Amino acid sequence: MDAATKPAVPHVSFDTSPDRYRHWKLTFDGPVATLSMDVQEDAGLSPDYKLKLNSYDLGVDVELADAIQRIRFEHPEVHAVIITSLKERVFCAGANIFMLRGSTHGWKVNFCKFTNETRLAIEDASAHSGITFIAALNGICAGGGYELALACDEIVLVDDGNSAVSLPETPLLGVLPGTGGLTRVVDKRKVRRDLADVFGTVAEGVKGKRAVEWRLVDAVYPTSQFKQRVAARARELAARSDRPAIGPGITLTPLKPVVTDDRVTYSAVDLEIDRDKRVATLTVTGPSGHLPEDAVGIHALGDQFWPLRAFRELDDAILRVRLAEPLIGTVVMKTRGDQGTLLRVDELLLANKDHWLVREIINFMKRTLKRVDLTSRSFFALIEPGNCFAGTLFELALAADRSYMLDDPDQKNTIALSPMNARLRAEGASAGKPVLPMSNGLTRLETRFLGQPEQVDKALEHDGPFDPQEALDAGLVSFAPDELDWDDEVRLAIESRAALSPDALTGMEANLRFAGPETMETKIFGRLTAWQNWIFIRPNAVGAKGALTAYGSQSRPEFDFNRT
Amino acid sequence: MDAATKPAVPHVSFDTSPDRYRHWKLTFDGPVATLSMDVQEDAGLSPDYKLKLNSYDLGVDVELADAIQRIRFEHPEVHAVIITSLKERVFCAGANIFMLRGSTHGWKVNFCKFTNETRLAIEDASAHSGITFIAALNGICAGGGYELALACDEIVLVDDGNSAVSLPETPLLGVLPGTGGLTRVVDKRKVRRDLADVFGTVAEGVKGKRAVEWRLVDAVYPTSQFKQRVAARARELAARSDRPAIGPGITLTPLKPVVTDDRVTYSAVDLEIDRDKRVATLTVTGPSGHLPEDAVGIHALGDQFWPLRAFRELDDAILRVRLAEPLIGTVVMKTRGDQGTLLRVDELLLANKDHWLVREIINFMKRTLKRVDLTSRSFFALIEPGNCFAGTLFELALAADRSYMLDDPDQKNTIALSPMNARLRAEGASAGKPVLPMSNGLTRLETRFLGQPEQVDKALEHDGPFDPQEALDAGLVSFAPDELDWDDEVRLAIESRAALSPDALTGMEANLRFAGPETMETKIFGRLTAWQNWIFIRPNAVGAKGALTAYGSQSRPEFDFNRT
Repeated sequence: MDAATKPAVPHVSFDTSPDRYRHWKLTFDGPVATLSMDVQEDAGLSPDYKLKLNSYDLGVDVELADAIQRIRFEHPEVHAVIITSLKERVFCAGANIFMLRGSTHGWKVNFCKFTNETRLAIEDASAHSGITFIAALNGICAGGGYELALACDEIVLVDDGNSAVSLPETPLLGVLPGTGGLTRVVDKRKVRRDLADVFGTVAEGVKGKRAVEWRLVDAVYPTSQFKQRVAARARELAARSDRPAIGPGITLTPLKPVVTDDRVTYSAVDLEIDRDKRVATLTVTGPSGHLPEDAVGIHALGDQFWPLRAFRELDDAILRVRLAEPLIGTVVMKTRGDQGTLLRVDELLLANKDHWLVREIINFMKRTLKRVDLTSRSFFALIEPGNCFAGTLFELALAADRSYMLDDPDQKNTIALSPMNARLRAEGASAGKPVLPMSNGLTRLETRFLGQPEQVDKALEHDGPFDPQEALDAGLVSFAPDELDWDDEVRLAIESRAALSPDALTGMEANLRFAGPETMETKIFGRLTAWQNWIFIRPNAVGAKGALTAYGSQSRPEFDFNRT
Repeated sequence: MDAATKPAVPHVSFDTSPDRYRHWKLTFDGPVATLSMDVQEDAGLSPDYKLKLNSYDLGVDVELADAIQRIRFEHPEVHAVIITSLKERVFCAGANIFMLRGSTHGWKVNFCKFTNETRLAIEDASAHSGITFIAALNGICAGGGYELALACDEIVLVDDGNSAVSLPETPLLGVLPGTGGLTRVVDKRKVRRDLADVFGTVAEGVKGKRAVEWRLVDAVYPTSQFKQRVAARARELAARSDRPAIGPGITLTPLKPVVTDDRVTYSAVDLEIDRDKRVATLTVTGPSGHLPEDAVGIHALGDQFWPLRAFRELDDAILRVRLAEPLIGTVVMKTRGDQGTLLRVDELLLANKDHWLVREIINFMKRTLKRVDLTSRSFFALIEPGNCFAGTLFELALAADRSYMLDDPDQKNTIALSPMNARLRAEGASAGKPVLPMSNGLTRLETRFLGQPEQVDKALEHDGPFDPQEALDAGLVSFAPDELDWDDEVRLAIESRAALSPDALTGMEANLRFAGPETMETKIFGRLTAWQNWIFIRPNAVGAKGALTAYGSQSRPEFDFNRT
């Protein structure tokens, strides 16, 4: 159970870089990068467990997420990535069980959410950035290790008579392979469900030819040929990429926010924490000043180009709320700045969307907005005079559970849309694709107007900004109180939200936010994660005699065999 | 928490009929039936609670399910159904909270599963049987009451200044509207997600014009016009039906199985319970004897026609396992009989599929098979000499988590497919539709072969029955042990399954069984139900100071505000 009053969570920083990695080595050979797992046993986030056999905790995954991100931005010349291990005969043993056992329920859930996002970022790089991933399993590959492999485009396994892939969570720990494992086995690799059922209940896993026949891996190679075959395949796949042949990339410099007890201040993002009210206020400041003229100018600005800078800060702020502020139930989102400048930035992004760097920036904005959708806190957007809820930043209001727009005749207050809120109109392969899709594959406007699809185009075709009444009529904001009602209405909404059961809110939001089609991604965060969260709190897993508790001790688990 | 050793569940019988209903009145007026809720406070399944304000427990829902079923089979002349209440100013207050509070976790989950299936049966009757449902909300309509309304095609609400629709679960009870409510609000009625968010957190709900504007109801009528407008609308909708203008229907007679402590024996189904091993054996006997020649002959046989008789018994047996035998973890499925006769029955069904009664029978078989898919027990099919795993009954092997087929050269052992395992090839509106779809909209063969779609047609085009090696090669069975290995392999599979965590198995099966597309139905049973099950075991709902526990008492709930 969680402590009722104070969060007890390890401190996690997302600020890292290859020269500081403790668990991964990133090396380059022309168009192929190799990301090698070599987890330091004693360098876990907590001294309470040892990260043996390349098992991982959140700290290991933060480095992995950073490496994927840097390959995308800093190494455009990389077209394929080999993920492998430097440990002898071991690829990865999965999430560290002693870490899981010692974690609060909330930590387990947040840990899995982040690792899921990292694996989806690998698939996003493959689908949208021209980077192919090969999991080169040079030894045993269990649980979360195999789930990492499943996120790659191809999986090759060494055929040494011993190395197997396995999902031993159910038979050994009484939990699920919850980092996408079950979903990807049947939905991505399309393993036959009865074979998946066997695979999911056999602790020792499947190896050799059978692993290929069951579609669990794409190929097995004998030890003697393994490295060479993997390298050859990586070069083949790299040749198909549309990434630039040579760099340079840009450098992702540290964010360096000013952090005090109740405030985190970045250059374009400010996060204010009110723990008494359990409310955080997140303010994003729009772009200002001189804008670059083209992709060359954007490249020259690098990570200081506003969209990248602001969204990196936003991403970091959201992760801080998730992990360091579990008692914050509601995030109030505000923006400020010049909407005209923001709309010009949107134009600039779309005009240069096929440039590798701009593509990366747009994809990163997309992933950050998905991170908001998937954050189990209530989001209320407050739209006040001076706001910058336009185009890309209006996505924040669309991602919010509700929005309030002040309608005061004495103060100008508007919002605006841009083509960034739509599907691409350009010709070519990307025509018709949402610029900033949600996990369900729709734009946020489309998800909002599932019942009135004509409202989407109508809103996008609207000429100029929307005043409060226009925004309300167009269905773009939830409420538009006048200056007499504003303070009370907003205060009451926030206060009454804070009084509700946090669990019920998490469940409600997880259901209301993702109307419309389901994708493998929504399945992972909906069906799979929700079942895992249920199991993570059941006595059969975490009780005194539960399987997760008993693992590695002398005692065997004892189950309540009532089936639910 | 569940008791670890013995199930403590009220006795529930699914055997009822309109003359014995205690909570519903079923009346007929030409093509329009009216199903009126009038719950008897003192006639709950347990004396521990009173069913005030048309609140319901499982007993009330069993009658509702029975009424829907009888309208389909016994009253083909009914083309529209009005669901309303006989209570003054109250439509329905939803699931009884004191019943929920006093129930074990397992009971809550099974209660919700059954009520979900009943609501989906209403939608199935609308989509596939030409029966339109109108929810005539003549008074307050809260929680599960509104979820029942959401399952109807149209919702009309009385505009009396007081009657509202509401989903007060989150604000009042700290749980979700888990009987499809959240999903149907945004996915079926396509209420804008921010309005759904407000609606889901406001205990008093929404009434009058705003309820229409928010798409929560289709119309509101003043009290003086309410009955007349509802009746007129029902007649309009009834006129669109393709059901016969006049009856007669057939009568669904009681099943009357022979029940002993460890066995339930029906005419074509036998259920044997081994509580020590936590295994049940379910044996279905195929059709035999003389078959009817056409729809007239089928109609004359009525509920004694084998497919209807056997599947009614199968449905009842599955529900008994779910509710009365929570400690049974694995159901071994067997069949016996003459495959040739079964395949002729399949032919007969398809040749007459457009006859209203045959359509109902096929739809009922479909719903029963879905009930298997959604049952949280492991299913193993054992295919032995003399089996009847052909066509429709082979769906049971496809629904199973695994199948084992004995390969003994000395004994003939085969399986067979039929067009019932496929999509319809006939022309017309139904061409290309799966005959027996799963909740995901695919046939079980298609779901099985997601990764090798060509295998579906190949298997269906196979000439004649499959022997064990052919079945294995075609991917239709999981394993085909020979006579030397059979006993040990099957015994070990069953024993090792019984030793695993029942919660992990439930979660694993819920993820592996539904590969491929998601539908509103799979969303309800995947995402929504899984989140509700999580909340149903969280201290914020069911702990000593949880909201469900505190409801109706003097004390206010106290929450652990850590967001997860």
